[in-house]
Amino acid sequence: MTNPVVVEVTRGPLVESRHRAAVALADATGKMMLAVGDVAAPVFPRSAIKVFQALPLVEEGAADRYGFGDEELALACASHSGEPAHVAGVERMLGAAGLDASALRCGAHWPMSQSAAHTLAKTGAPSALHNNCSGKHAGFLCVACAAGLDHADYWRPQHPVQRKVRAVIEDFTGAVLSDDRCAIDGCSVPTWAIPLENLARGFAKFANGQGLAPTRAAAAARLRDACARKPWHIAGTGRFCTEIMQIFGARVFVKTGAEGVYCGALPEQGLGIAVKCDDGAGRAAQAIVAAIIAHFLPIDDTERAALAPFVQPVLRNWNGLEVGAVRVIEPALRSTD
Amino acid sequence: MTNPVVVEVTRGPLVESRHRAAVALADATGKMMLAVGDVAAPVFPRSAIKVFQALPLVEEGAADRYGFGDEELALACASHSGEPAHVAGVERMLGAAGLDASALRCGAHWPMSQSAAHTLAKTGAPSALHNNCSGKHAGFLCVACAAGLDHADYWRPQHPVQRKVRAVIEDFTGAVLSDDRCAIDGCSVPTWAIPLENLARGFAKFANGQGLAPTRAAAAARLRDACARKPWHIAGTGRFCTEIMQIFGARVFVKTGAEGVYCGALPEQGLGIAVKCDDGAGRAAQAIVAAIIAHFLPIDDTERAALAPFVQPVLRNWNGLEVGAVRVIEPALRSTD
Repeated sequence: MTNPVVVEVTRGPLVESRHRAAVALADATGKMMLAVGDVAAPVFPRSAIKVFQALPLVEEGAADRYGFGDEELALACASHSGEPAHVAGVERMLGAAGLDASALRCGAHWPMSQSAAHTLAKTGAPSALHNNCSGKHAGFLCVACAAGLDHADYWRPQHPVQRKVRAVIEDFTGAVLSDDRCAIDGCSVPTWAIPLENLARGFAKFANGQGLAPTRAAAAARLRDACARKPWHIAGTGRFCTEIMQIFGARVFVKTGAEGVYCGALPEQGLGIAVKCDDGAGRAAQAIVAAIIAHFLPIDDTERAALAPFVQPVLRNWNGLEVGAVRVIEPALRSTD
Repeated sequence: MTNPVVVEVTRGPLVESRHRAAVALADATGKMMLAVGDVAAPVFPRSAIKVFQALPLVEEGAADRYGFGDEELALACASHSGEPAHVAGVERMLGAAGLDASALRCGAHWPMSQSAAHTLAKTGAPSALHNNCSGKHAGFLCVACAAGLDHADYWRPQHPVQRKVRAVIEDFTGAVLSDDRCAIDGCSVPTWAIPLENLARGFAKFANGQGLAPTRAAAAARLRDACARKPWHIAGTGRFCTEIMQIFGARVFVKTGAEGVYCGALPEQGLGIAVKCDDGAGRAAQAIVAAIIAHFLPIDDTERAALAPFVQPVLRNWNGLEVGAVRVIEPALRSTD
């Protein structure tokens, strides 16, 4: 099955580039509200399911034990930009469990924030704390420490923490996470390929807890609320996830993953969203997510105006001249297969 | 016409992302040696045709007048990384014409080289000299100054320098550059959409001068030789264009453009190459270019081994673990439509 072109990038009078994608929108019963392209094909969700990976941190009691508030919980769900307050928050999480950055196994990279990277470059080099996944890894370490487990191999598929994570993902998505669909993520933890229809259903459950055991539903709600209250901590300055959640608060949850993946939830509608661009382009995936919000969330004119730059971003060159735009092909998003 | 998937990006046991592309390989008579996908569709070549844009600098005598050698000529054809010697070379070009950075109209951006950007951030901020197109713009300014023209608007489509450039591009490619196919490039000069089959033919003429007037053929040869001798100046440390030309010297010319475009030439074979990935992905376009070189250039085992990491790059994560690969679908590249 060939996925349709859902996003075009224009330059002057012509289309310069095209992005194909598959898109799933579902409720917690699995009913598909939108199914564009091949929503049954397995897709690596990458960082888009960090809320599922962070769930044991709440559910197993580690978050309470270490006194974590909204900022720490949002960081556990984050692909953060490595700005100073992100780094400080992750250090706080590790410190609560008696650890420091040396326990992290996510690897180091320069902050995603160019400004933070340039500031850091003046005096030093990045550590694992600056890795966009360091909050998630700190969360894994806290789960291990609170349970009295050896935390050295917390990132390996067979470690009890990752086995808990795997069970949570299976519970939310209803997908079987088999070894033949398992790969290694950028931060070295396992990532399992899951059909978009299952991811959308999983995020519908995340949206309002429907279909989950009560303790799990409560843990999901706590993570959702933390991200809604601290959207800067889930991404960072100027980032799509942060800006969208700053506009809509608890009415929208969105989370990016690498290679053109986005997952999200519309809690009041009980809907889950899963998007994958064939080619891995984040610019297209986020325009699609913005268009879905514009279609499926009741919004007022002010909110529509705030959302418009994300649905159809204007492209400017180094002199600030308007050179083109990213535009979602709306009919492609209306068709339900 | 739907272009075929030519490049896959794997992660663990699965394909994670897919890139569609059109590919043209032609000789100077226009005979197509390879035509994959829609090679008749107009494509913005962006920076991939900087050698055509630099041609008046040599042909009109400005390069001789200002005493330019290989480094300056390669910089005029470059999308450079903004490393110190790139910046110094562009300053030298401007100085020869009695100008400085204030004459550049390309806009400023941080050096493409992360290392150069971090070093610069310690003491300052980028100027137009760091723009990857600053050498091209310095070349335009030199053409204007050598001809005694007002250089203030050298970047506008109606300026004599851009009109010369337009005529050169039409001569090489045989395409009519009409206003309805004109857009603004990242550095504010005009960019005209041209079919890949015409671009490939144009680069076949560039490869060995066949079909060009003698003075134009000589100017093309001089630019080709300059880039072959100074490949670091056309891109920079660790960049694809630089590394490929360091391996093959004068036997291969390659030049990247934004949004997944590459053009190139195999001078000894008299062949021109033009590639456009539908989605704008440079990682896919350069793997395709590497695969074309492996197919169409007679190379020895040492060269094949040196080329292999570009044909099928291994992807590693932040801990250095191998997580996947970029791979060209070879049969897709063998079919000639």
